[in-house]
Amino acid sequence: MNERVERQIRFIRELDRLKTVQRQTWLMDTSRKENSAEHSWHIAVMAMVLAEYAPAGTVDIARVIQMLLLHDIVEIDAGDTFCYDKSAASGQHEREDRAALRLFGLLPEDIGLKFKALWNEFESRETPEALLANALDRLQPILNNYYSNGKSWQANGISRRQVRARNRAMADAAPELWGYIENLLDRAVDRGLLRRSAT
Amino acid sequence: MNERVERQIRFIRELDRLKTVQRQTWLMDTSRKENSAEHSWHIAVMAMVLAEYAPAGTVDIARVIQMLLLHDIVEIDAGDTFCYDKSAASGQHEREDRAALRLFGLLPEDIGLKFKALWNEFESRETPEALLANALDRLQPILNNYYSNGKSWQANGISRRQVRARNRAMADAAPELWGYIENLLDRAVDRGLLRRSAT
Repeated sequence: MNERVERQIRFIRELDRLKTVQRQTWLMDTSRKENSAEHSWHIAVMAMVLAEYAPAGTVDIARVIQMLLLHDIVEIDAGDTFCYDKSAASGQHEREDRAALRLFGLLPEDIGLKFKALWNEFESRETPEALLANALDRLQPILNNYYSNGKSWQANGISRRQVRARNRAMADAAPELWGYIENLLDRAVDRGLLRRSAT
Repeated sequence: MNERVERQIRFIRELDRLKTVQRQTWLMDTSRKENSAEHSWHIAVMAMVLAEYAPAGTVDIARVIQMLLLHDIVEIDAGDTFCYDKSAASGQHEREDRAALRLFGLLPEDIGLKFKALWNEFESRETPEALLANALDRLQPILNNYYSNGKSWQANGISRRQVRARNRAMADAAPELWGYIENLLDRAVDRGLLRRSAT
């Protein structure tokens, strides 16, 4: 048991570093950008609040929450990749795969394999749980961007079309929520927070 | 559905403020104090890593995780109360009860009642799930204090006896982990991070 608990605590220590990984999204009060640890918390609670919008009601919400808690841990080594930055995205998969190998490898093997499987499931976007988890991971920055007066959208010259393209998967994973978001994006364009897409 | 989703999003917006509630605990790299949102994420993942140490293996870990995700939300209104500050603790329960009423009251009633029940369960420390959740909530600051060179322990003149008294419940909730922590506290005293208790 001693080596086992040492490995568990070693991993828990490493987790602390996710609190220093900065994202492009601002807090709604615009006091600073958010980090990946608090973002992960936010979307895990969102899963609890919004579970009912998953189609067919067949989603195991406990697995969605666990996926969301783990999905960004690879950023401890690989950093956060801004979703609209195509050059940064090159090599992202390799960086994240290496990170998963090292970080989940710190754990006792049985736990490491379980976490790696949850992370793979999230990344593969195939199961209903992974689709909902990915939708929530994208919904949260839309809300934070909207309620921080479009600070990150404007700094990066993002258009409504880019946000739509990036988030189209939400239309399948949570169609009722997507209706709400379409409306929010319209308001964002009207308020000048988001660039109107060229017609 | 429209009013319902509006209430859910209203609550999700409010959650963002937990990222600005500062705790007494430092990040392990000592770059800054941590906030209650990232703390909540950290202990939720800890529950996934350390679930096996709950006695009798009868714990529903999904409920432990959900309790941990919700347990600090009342601090959005009530602020974080430093656990060794007795004067700040006066009135804490009333402040937190009022906060729970307002915050969970933002949600559609069915979800608000469910969240309030999970928060009450955490606070009452009676079920095995609540005991484990409380133990993890206390273990994390011990680890962060130890690995940030006792920064918060030293600033507040905390002794080994105070940490022991505060965390004795962990001995029942997770006895094997408690053995590990006792050893860590010994090392903290040896390294001068924690005040030796008067004999």
